Amino acid sequence: MRHRRDDVVDRALAVLDVHGLPDLTMRRLGNELGVQPSAIYHHFADKQTLLAAVADTILARGGRPLPEGSWEERARASCHTLRDACLAWTDGAEVVATVRAFGLGARAPYDELVGVLTEGGLDPELAGTASRTLLHFVLGHALDEQTHRQAGSAGAIASDPTSTDHTSDFETGLDLVLAGLAVRATR
Amino acid sequence: MRHRRDDVVDRALAVLDVHGLPDLTMRRLGNELGVQPSAIYHHFADKQTLLAAVADTILARGGRPLPEGSWEERARASCHTLRDACLAWTDGAEVVATVRAFGLGARAPYDELVGVLTEGGLDPELAGTASRTLLHFVLGHALDEQTHRQAGSAGAIASDPTSTDHTSDFETGLDLVLAGLAVRATR
Repeated sequence: MRHRRDDVVDRALAVLDVHGLPDLTMRRLGNELGVQPSAIYHHFADKQTLLAAVADTILARGGRPLPEGSWEERARASCHTLRDACLAWTDGAEVVATVRAFGLGARAPYDELVGVLTEGGLDPELAGTASRTLLHFVLGHALDEQTHRQAGSAGAIASDPTSTDHTSDFETGLDLVLAGLAVRATR
Repeated sequence: MRHRRDDVVDRALAVLDVHGLPDLTMRRLGNELGVQPSAIYHHFADKQTLLAAVADTILARGGRPLPEGSWEERARASCHTLRDACLAWTDGAEVVATVRAFGLGARAPYDELVGVLTEGGLDPELAGTASRTLLHFVLGHALDEQTHRQAGSAGAIASDPTSTDHTSDFETGLDLVLAGLAVRATR
């Protein structure tokens, strides 16, 4: 039983990566697995629950241990890991952001950041707000980058001449938020 | 002709606000207006183009003049205006964020922020990255807030006991980003 549930998630990830989120339907997944959609509903109450498992798997597979260092270095590493995990799969950022917004899963990055910041001495309320602020930035940036790349490769939009280097833009933006947090933390 | 195009956008906004983005289809809009979908395609090449006009109207109607003051005060006001404009309509944040990600419209907030920051003396490249960082935060926050409120009122998810005051959380997060930008600007 446990094994079959993982099979469904594996196949859902494959469908997502090849065809994208709009084509990830319970019907299509059943076809790919050679079963009726009802067999999938045996494992997942609805599509949102399946997407939550897909998001958590994206995050788990992209997970990296935190480095030793200051809270700034650890928070920066955590944000880079999240970005890379999202970008590793077609529509990965959209899946993670959606699941997170609905409170259905994808909680690991928030929990990790709050842990890093409170261990770094920030008060819990500020750590919570700061973690959400970092996640809005990371997921918003990853969503934009992924949308541009995928739409560009599909010819749906003209490639943007102003977007030169997504990684450099990401790092500068992340530094801005962390610098602001350092100001607040030492106040 | 011009008048009819505005009628379509007005009706699209009404459908959006009452029924939400998933129900805003060309077919439904045609029904509401008492015309064939082809009559709508006369004004808008596709649904994305219609959504771009809807997003720009949301932003235009929610627009407020910038106050006098420092670039921090003006940027903060610009971000509050964007948040309020998005929250004024059902799924407003999703419409604006999607249209922006696809490069189809909703460019006014970015242009306004870049203007505020460059007038404040920031170099243009940093002003661009900082404006995108602020927009990721504002739109990500508004999306989360709207998703929680709408899902909570529809009973789709339990209300989140940890999210006490969205406005205070927004202001603290915005202050973090602006504080980081102030550090970079005076370097």
